[in-house]
Amino acid sequence: MLHSAKNLLTHMSRRAFNQQIGKAAGMMALSASLPAWPYQEKPEKKLGVALVGLGGYSTGQLAPALQQTQYCKLAGIVTGTPAKEKIWSEQYGIPHKNIYNYENFDTIADNPAIDIVYVVLPNAMHAEYTIRAAQAGKHVICEKPMAISVQECEEMMAACREAGVKLSMGYRLHFEPHNQEVMRLGQQKVFGNLTFVTCEAGYQIKDNWDQWRLKKALAGTGALGNMGVYAIQGAINVVGENPLYVTAQEFKTKPEKFKEVDETVTLQFEFPGGTVANLQTSHNARMNRLYAAADNGWFELVPYSPYQGIQGKSSEGALALPQVNQQALQMDDFAYYILHDKPTRVPGEMGMRDVQIIEAVLQSAATGKKVPLKNLAF
Amino acid sequence: MLHSAKNLLTHMSRRAFNQQIGKAAGMMALSASLPAWPYQEKPEKKLGVALVGLGGYSTGQLAPALQQTQYCKLAGIVTGTPAKEKIWSEQYGIPHKNIYNYENFDTIADNPAIDIVYVVLPNAMHAEYTIRAAQAGKHVICEKPMAISVQECEEMMAACREAGVKLSMGYRLHFEPHNQEVMRLGQQKVFGNLTFVTCEAGYQIKDNWDQWRLKKALAGTGALGNMGVYAIQGAINVVGENPLYVTAQEFKTKPEKFKEVDETVTLQFEFPGGTVANLQTSHNARMNRLYAAADNGWFELVPYSPYQGIQGKSSEGALALPQVNQQALQMDDFAYYILHDKPTRVPGEMGMRDVQIIEAVLQSAATGKKVPLKNLAF
Repeated sequence: MLHSAKNLLTHMSRRAFNQQIGKAAGMMALSASLPAWPYQEKPEKKLGVALVGLGGYSTGQLAPALQQTQYCKLAGIVTGTPAKEKIWSEQYGIPHKNIYNYENFDTIADNPAIDIVYVVLPNAMHAEYTIRAAQAGKHVICEKPMAISVQECEEMMAACREAGVKLSMGYRLHFEPHNQEVMRLGQQKVFGNLTFVTCEAGYQIKDNWDQWRLKKALAGTGALGNMGVYAIQGAINVVGENPLYVTAQEFKTKPEKFKEVDETVTLQFEFPGGTVANLQTSHNARMNRLYAAADNGWFELVPYSPYQGIQGKSSEGALALPQVNQQALQMDDFAYYILHDKPTRVPGEMGMRDVQIIEAVLQSAATGKKVPLKNLAF
Repeated sequence: MLHSAKNLLTHMSRRAFNQQIGKAAGMMALSASLPAWPYQEKPEKKLGVALVGLGGYSTGQLAPALQQTQYCKLAGIVTGTPAKEKIWSEQYGIPHKNIYNYENFDTIADNPAIDIVYVVLPNAMHAEYTIRAAQAGKHVICEKPMAISVQECEEMMAACREAGVKLSMGYRLHFEPHNQEVMRLGQQKVFGNLTFVTCEAGYQIKDNWDQWRLKKALAGTGALGNMGVYAIQGAINVVGENPLYVTAQEFKTKPEKFKEVDETVTLQFEFPGGTVANLQTSHNARMNRLYAAADNGWFELVPYSPYQGIQGKSSEGALALPQVNQQALQMDDFAYYILHDKPTRVPGEMGMRDVQIIEAVLQSAATGKKVPLKNLAF
């Protein structure tokens, strides 16, 4: 299941990789997280990716990552800001015919250079552009959270199903070696049953109080959908089960700033196998850690979820694993599975499950009651 | 307020201390945690301490610590196990006249060699032996949790008040330099207002399922009173306020083992200044950390509460502070304040406050409701 770690070999020389491995003191057996490499064949062509929304994540992470990919490449952009067209065209050699705005976006259906549309817009626009991309016959990858309601998620999945295109989520940590290793440690019970997991992901908004992430109409939720998704994923990923119940609490230290959406949320999961998780997220506090206690040991990632610099250790020593380009691996994985018509490991159903959990979290925080997590999509 | 760090100089040479300071890379200004040394005078005599209950903590920590103290010394023992009398008498030179059992304990009133009684018994016996010690005219220091009910705490404080003796709690972390430093960082807002604190303290009971800590009649509570008190103290100590409200959740991964008392508890505090805390404790999971996010930085202790090996860092670098004998400092501090008839910094009132909070935690976990924390004793 966790078979992309070796992918990092496409992003660093084998010698550099082996040197990192050689340096590793007390590391876990890396080979265990490197199952058979699935990407045997060279692609006949690289799939073309169009980024929809050219904000900080597209500019700082996705576009550079798509210069390092083997199975896909940055081929197009969709932007509402004409000034960006020239900048991106020059920087990445994007031809004029592959540049769209939000009015002519649907004509992308006629462009064979675009195979994949990556939706990097504010949360409330995910559903519309995922559905329009699917209807244009394009495979879609969508940033988290998948949408601002479960209903939207269902509509997005239905549109992709009807169009016969694949839908994936931008859950980059599934392609990161430290995260893959703790999934292995937890799911394979390397230290025995997990008894307790804590996961936290948050940062502090200190200025730019007009940003869309603070507006309910655009963001749906605040910290919960933006960073809480990482905490939710972290716990579920290492336990390898969906939780049965959630309890949650919401707090506002700065209610005058966080008027429309949540600021700080704590939540607890109960898993079928008995694991308990206590999670926290905030847009008013820096926090970033995944920690799991098991019957025979423990493991943790600190920090857990940045683009670079993830580090881990266990009760047996450091997890000495390489740094990779998470977004490049994520995009190559999606492209490979499109090329081979196999399911992605981070499908729309996983994104919908997390939105189902987010809705249950808000319900529990509002009512004070434990909420059962039933009929999860993934 | 935090004026015992320099006390470590009584437990390590000044050269060794300065070497540690010199080695400190990126440390916070240590001098700020070293206010004026209050212990100017040499004592005319060392106060005599009698340990009541010779379990692991007395044997492994307190008795050795009392060999390193300047203002008090191990002078007597109270034990129900005759075999221990000879062992302790030989190891620590305790004269027969200073050895008591639980039947003749009250005659300790006639023994001028004993000034302080340290109650290290199962929680349910704290009240009885604190009250009997007070009635015997001895100053008392009591292990945490102070008692198994608020009512008992009130009776203990009343007995000490009526007898004119001092009552202190075994809150050793108040005498530990890393903990003192994070109290300073938080309370003095060195990184600005604290927005979020998480604190965790727990270990896993893996055998000895007959121990008193699992029996309600002896322990009152499980992890909550034993280790949760550290999490509660950690949050309150760095914020420097009492919380206004608590929400709490209780979980049992192994209900067949934890039949009578709590196994795993998560709880949240809201503080007057707006800080939110998310805390966790367990007798089924190893966990040990204190983390605080502030408007202009962060700081943490990992591990937070062991007898030795506490380490810390902040957004500005490592907290390079010395390791000390926490119990020796704690006992010298209590003895000094007895000798000078001043209040201890960890009085019975603080212990009662924490038992008040424990009762509110259990109430919230049972009802699912937020519980206001009113009329706290400290």
